[in-house]
Amino acid sequence: MKLEPGEAILLYEASERDSNIFYATRFLAPDRFIYIRTAEREAIIVSDLELDRARAEAQVDEVLPLRLFRQRCKERGVESPKIGEVLDEVLKEFGVSRVIVPAGFGVKYADLIRERGYELRVKDEPFFEERRRKTPQEVEWIRRAIESTQKALERAIRIIADSSIENDLLIYEGEPLTSERLRREIEISLLEMNCLAKGTIVACGEQSAEPHKIGSGPLRPNRPIVIDVFPRDLSTGYHADITRTVVKGKAPEEVKRMFEAVMGAQEMAIGMIKPGADGKEIHSAVVNFFKERGFETGEKDGRMQGFFHGTGHGIGLDVHEPPALSTESVELEPGNVITVEPGLYYPDVGGVRIEDDVLVTEDGCEVLTDFPKTLEIE
Amino acid sequence: MKLEPGEAILLYEASERDSNIFYATRFLAPDRFIYIRTAEREAIIVSDLELDRARAEAQVDEVLPLRLFRQRCKERGVESPKIGEVLDEVLKEFGVSRVIVPAGFGVKYADLIRERGYELRVKDEPFFEERRRKTPQEVEWIRRAIESTQKALERAIRIIADSSIENDLLIYEGEPLTSERLRREIEISLLEMNCLAKGTIVACGEQSAEPHKIGSGPLRPNRPIVIDVFPRDLSTGYHADITRTVVKGKAPEEVKRMFEAVMGAQEMAIGMIKPGADGKEIHSAVVNFFKERGFETGEKDGRMQGFFHGTGHGIGLDVHEPPALSTESVELEPGNVITVEPGLYYPDVGGVRIEDDVLVTEDGCEVLTDFPKTLEIE
Repeated sequence: MKLEPGEAILLYEASERDSNIFYATRFLAPDRFIYIRTAEREAIIVSDLELDRARAEAQVDEVLPLRLFRQRCKERGVESPKIGEVLDEVLKEFGVSRVIVPAGFGVKYADLIRERGYELRVKDEPFFEERRRKTPQEVEWIRRAIESTQKALERAIRIIADSSIENDLLIYEGEPLTSERLRREIEISLLEMNCLAKGTIVACGEQSAEPHKIGSGPLRPNRPIVIDVFPRDLSTGYHADITRTVVKGKAPEEVKRMFEAVMGAQEMAIGMIKPGADGKEIHSAVVNFFKERGFETGEKDGRMQGFFHGTGHGIGLDVHEPPALSTESVELEPGNVITVEPGLYYPDVGGVRIEDDVLVTEDGCEVLTDFPKTLEIE
Repeated sequence: MKLEPGEAILLYEASERDSNIFYATRFLAPDRFIYIRTAEREAIIVSDLELDRARAEAQVDEVLPLRLFRQRCKERGVESPKIGEVLDEVLKEFGVSRVIVPAGFGVKYADLIRERGYELRVKDEPFFEERRRKTPQEVEWIRRAIESTQKALERAIRIIADSSIENDLLIYEGEPLTSERLRREIEISLLEMNCLAKGTIVACGEQSAEPHKIGSGPLRPNRPIVIDVFPRDLSTGYHADITRTVVKGKAPEEVKRMFEAVMGAQEMAIGMIKPGADGKEIHSAVVNFFKERGFETGEKDGRMQGFFHGTGHGIGLDVHEPPALSTESVELEPGNVITVEPGLYYPDVGGVRIEDDVLVTEDGCEVLTDFPKTLEIE
């Protein structure tokens, strides 16, 4: 972002929860701290608790103690300075008259800044435009997260393969295999590779017909099992996001038909990905692809059916970030890393989703994931 | 919060990142959704993707499809409705003229609401006052998280006990025991109990002198090892937060002195906890306790030394939440659950911190943690 004299980017967030401030600083902290950048200077302002760690770890020009600005407030008579006064001192120190903040900047802090006579401009996401164009280093970090995710998926598939079918259950190590157990196996395996997975989906049968249902209870043969894993690599902060759908035993004909359609839709969508392509057109093509094959979408008997989520989304420091392949127009650019994840969901049959991660290159795209797409597991 | 006619609480957050909207709905979702409550009605408004899951899981009166409000925008001529128009339709549907939002409510959305003529009131944290007075059910959930945390800590201590000392290293299963390894053991053990720990601190020697440093590299004998574990129980969303400091082998005299002071400060602070007590006074008492014993605090040779963080903080859905035992006045009430975690940090010696979780009761307090505080491990 190019800044004029008197202008500053201002963030006030906890970097464990907010990727913009992490992106700007590469400093992970559990509590809110201040980030400020002008055309000349860049700094974070942190409590004494974080001061030394920030000086060692934060990738910014200056690390200043919050104490310093609280002290200045006190010197001009504010007995117990609050965040409004502190922000005022910071903006004065940096010679700022106009502040640029992201959409999610807390309204309380925005109002405090405005009240003190500063101009405040809200910039929409992506706040840092460059976040969507991944550098070779960032692509490398995503590749590493993908590699770990694939290893965890491999372990999950192996457990399903090693299970036997008894009384409409999958039996593994003498016990019915459950969503909970398989999720734990996946997440522990990821943790061993320093990746943190939250809400890993292992959903079987009717449960798999709700795209974000994480799944619970015994896994059963001859029904789709959707496995969707999207961990953050803790050493870098970057995500992977991969989904496979498998059936232990024999897949019903309808599931096979859905699987083929989803595979076809994904192949078609990936074929359309290149610089200049419109995310909305790719999504529409997938919607039409399903419609033409007779897979209907809409609310039926009070439940959503068919294909009712976006075709894909950017991944990076957030697991959902721009650009999306969805109902809004967006032009793809080299360096975008996006998921392509068509799916079909019918409560009486279950769900089928296949998701890969794709890098937009100078003249097309590269599929970063490399993991088998086999529906039936014996 | 008591609401007048025409007033509404409005939240627009992802409940995976924001505890207020999770508290209000008990519905965990990765993307922003709308929560609205008036004196008569309470609802969330979600995308089709989350609709069925929200209807099954969210603890609110109504779950409405976002689609419905987008449709209404279209009917009055807005071709591709954005969040501003959608919020407007929602507020109309609920007969709202005055909106109450938390400090962290995104300024973009706040401005869109104000532009459309609604009054907007920002309420400081704790937004839901009742979040700091835990119900018996919430206390039970925290107890469960504490129990799991203690099991994980037990495992960590056992690994240190089972290690041998060779060449200034701890040797475990034939290899030097590292911060990373011990952290992984703790976090995997927690995951097996469905608790998610992030940033678990296992910091030894000089590293332990920075309170939030997570630690890396080999653990060494005869230096303090600070272990700080603060997982979220995934089945409830509630946290525990426990710290112990141990030394494998012999603790240096200075570390013993620090340990005794920290233990004494903690005991004194816990003794002061009861309804009506001021968090600031408890914190000041700890600050003075250390000062009187000759433990100085301040920046020295460019690094923070002594005791330079708060004495404690509330825990619940967030790992840091009100009320705090810190530099600001706050009156303790029955149902508060707070940490008490004095610490001393000197770069040439290392850090010592002891942290327990304490429930404020009707007539005093109850220490919820029950885990040995033994400095030296043979």
